[in-house]
Amino acid sequence: MGVTIAIDCMGGDHGPPVTVPAALSFLRSHPDANAILVGREEILRPLFADEALRFGERLRVQPAAEVVTMDDPPAIAMRTKKDSSMRVAIDLVKSGGADAAVSAGNTGALMAISRFVLKTLPGIDRPAIATVLPSMTGHTYVLDLGANVDCTAEHLLQFGVMGAMLVAAVEHKERPSVGLLNIGEEIIKGNDVVKEAGELLRNSGLNFHGNIEGNDIYEGTVDVVVCDGFVGNVALKTSEGLAQMIGAFLKEEFKRSPLTRLMGVIALPVLRRFKRRVDHRLYNGAPLLGLRGVVLKSHGSADALAFENALVRAAEAASNRLIERISERMSSMNEVKA
Amino acid sequence: MGVTIAIDCMGGDHGPPVTVPAALSFLRSHPDANAILVGREEILRPLFADEALRFGERLRVQPAAEVVTMDDPPAIAMRTKKDSSMRVAIDLVKSGGADAAVSAGNTGALMAISRFVLKTLPGIDRPAIATVLPSMTGHTYVLDLGANVDCTAEHLLQFGVMGAMLVAAVEHKERPSVGLLNIGEEIIKGNDVVKEAGELLRNSGLNFHGNIEGNDIYEGTVDVVVCDGFVGNVALKTSEGLAQMIGAFLKEEFKRSPLTRLMGVIALPVLRRFKRRVDHRLYNGAPLLGLRGVVLKSHGSADALAFENALVRAAEAASNRLIERISERMSSMNEVKA
Repeated sequence: MGVTIAIDCMGGDHGPPVTVPAALSFLRSHPDANAILVGREEILRPLFADEALRFGERLRVQPAAEVVTMDDPPAIAMRTKKDSSMRVAIDLVKSGGADAAVSAGNTGALMAISRFVLKTLPGIDRPAIATVLPSMTGHTYVLDLGANVDCTAEHLLQFGVMGAMLVAAVEHKERPSVGLLNIGEEIIKGNDVVKEAGELLRNSGLNFHGNIEGNDIYEGTVDVVVCDGFVGNVALKTSEGLAQMIGAFLKEEFKRSPLTRLMGVIALPVLRRFKRRVDHRLYNGAPLLGLRGVVLKSHGSADALAFENALVRAAEAASNRLIERISERMSSMNEVKA
Repeated sequence: MGVTIAIDCMGGDHGPPVTVPAALSFLRSHPDANAILVGREEILRPLFADEALRFGERLRVQPAAEVVTMDDPPAIAMRTKKDSSMRVAIDLVKSGGADAAVSAGNTGALMAISRFVLKTLPGIDRPAIATVLPSMTGHTYVLDLGANVDCTAEHLLQFGVMGAMLVAAVEHKERPSVGLLNIGEEIIKGNDVVKEAGELLRNSGLNFHGNIEGNDIYEGTVDVVVCDGFVGNVALKTSEGLAQMIGAFLKEEFKRSPLTRLMGVIALPVLRRFKRRVDHRLYNGAPLLGLRGVVLKSHGSADALAFENALVRAAEAASNRLIERISERMSSMNEVKA
C-alpha cells in the first residue's frame, strides 16, 4: 500500500477549485497513492462526484468545519480553530492516518499548528522551511526561508543536517554537499553567527563545501544552501521579483510592433520550452523540516498544476523516510558529541 | 568648467586596457568633463597617445607606482601602498584636485582607504555601498551592499538618509520613497534591529513607505531599499546568479536544433533589445556613501562600456552636490533631535 496524503483543501488563495482537481490528478498519476481531502464535505464532494467511484477507497473525505484564513494570527488559529481543515490534516499525520499533510494556507499558522501537534525531533530546536530552486546543473535546496529570523550557529548547523537529509531522501544522493550562504568565500567573511556556524559545519561530518555566495544558488555549486530565515526569505522573494520582471520585459519586447509579434509567433516553440524550464510551479511544495511528521507548504496562490507538484513532493518525502533520516542523523551527531 | 574624475586606471580584473578606453569614450561624450588617469605612466600613455592632443588639458596623467591587488587585505593596502593608483586617486578628491574617484579595484581596500583619507560626514557612523538596479517602473537604489554586515537600527536609518539624498541628486526626485527590506509588510515582522529601524525611519521626516519584501526591489515599489550589508549582498549576488541562469537557459533553448537556431536568428532583433534592457553593465558604478567626497566602485570584471557608465555616474553624483545634500540632511535631522 502506498503513501496517504492529507490535503488541507480549504487553504490558499483559491481553495477547493484548485486543491480538489490537483488531488484527482495526483491520484491518476500515482496509482499507489491515497488522498484524504480535508474540509467542508458539502463543498468538496460536488467537485469530484464523477470520479468518486473510480478511485474507491483511495479517495476519502475527512470533514472539518472551520478554515484558517490568511489573516488569522498563528496563535489564534492554533488555539481556537481546532476543527480547521489545516489542523485536521495535521492531526491525521499525528494519528498515523496519513503519511504527510499539504496545505496552501497561512504559513505562520501551519508552522505553529504543526509544531504544536507533531512536536520537533530530538536535537532540533526549531523547524525550518526548505524549498527547491532550479540551477544550472539541476536543483538547489535552500533553507531556512522565513520561519526563523534570529538564528544561532547551532540552528544553522541543524538546518544543514535537515537539508542534507532532505536531499538524500528525495534526490537519492547519499552525501549531498552543503554550503553556508555568506558574502564571500573566505572563512573570515560574514558576521559572528555565520563564522561560528561555518566552524560547526566543518566539524559536523556533513559533506560541507564551505562558504558560498548568492550567485552559487543558481550556479548549482552545492546541493543544500544554509542561511537564516531572514536572508533566505529575501533571496527567494528577490528571485521571484527578478524572474517576473525579466518575463515581463521579454513579453513587452515581443509585443512592441506587428513585426516583433510575428517574430514571437515564430519563436513560440522555443519560448514555451524556455518558460517551462523556469516555471516556478514546478518548484512548489516547501517541506517544514525538523518535525515528527511530513508537512509541506504550498504557495498560497498555487494553481492546480503547482499544488499537484506539492502533493508529489510530499509523497516522495514520506515514502523515502525523510523523518527517520533526519532523526537518525541527529542522534548519531549527538552521540559523537556526548 | 565641468567635473574632474580621478580614475584608478590600474584596478580591476582588466586594468588599463579597459579603464583607459572607457575614460576616452567618457571624455568624448561629456565635453565639459575632465579626467585624471592615475597609474603607471609608461603603461597608460601608449594607450591614448593618438588622442592626447585632442583632449588637451582635459586629459591628464597622475603617476602612481603601486597597485592594490584583489588579494591585498584592506589594512595592508591602506598602510603600506601609499603610492598606489587607488590611494592617489582618492588623495586627489581629498585635495580638491578631483571631484570624484572611480576604481574597479578591491572593494575592501577602496572602502578602507576612502574612509581613512576622506573621513565620514558628521552624523554618519559607517559609509555604505549603494547600487542601482532596473525595475518594472524605472530604477531602484539598494544599500548597503556588503560594507556593513552587523548593523544597528541607527545605521539603517543613516542608510535611508544617504540613499534618499543619492536619488535626489542623480534622479532629481526631491522626496524619493524609502522602503525597509523585511520578510513581510506588517510592522511586527522581522528581527529586533529591523523593527527598531522601521520606527526610526517612520519618525525621520523621510518619505518612508514602510516594510517591503525582496520582490519589491524589481517591482519598483520604492526608490530606495534599505537593508544591512549581509542581506543586500546576498540579494544582489542572488540576482546576478538568477539573471545569468535565465540567460543561459534562453540561449540553450535557441541552440537546441537547426530549426530553433533559425527561430533565434529571426527573433534576434527582439532578443537584442531585451538583452540591452537587462544589461548589468548599464548599472555599473556603486557609490560609497557617507564620505566627505565622491567615490564610486566599479565591478571588478567591468568591460569598457560598464566602466564608462561608472564614470558617468560619478560625474552626475559630483555635479549634483551629492555630498552637500547628505550633509545638510544629516545636520537638519540632528537639529530636530537636539
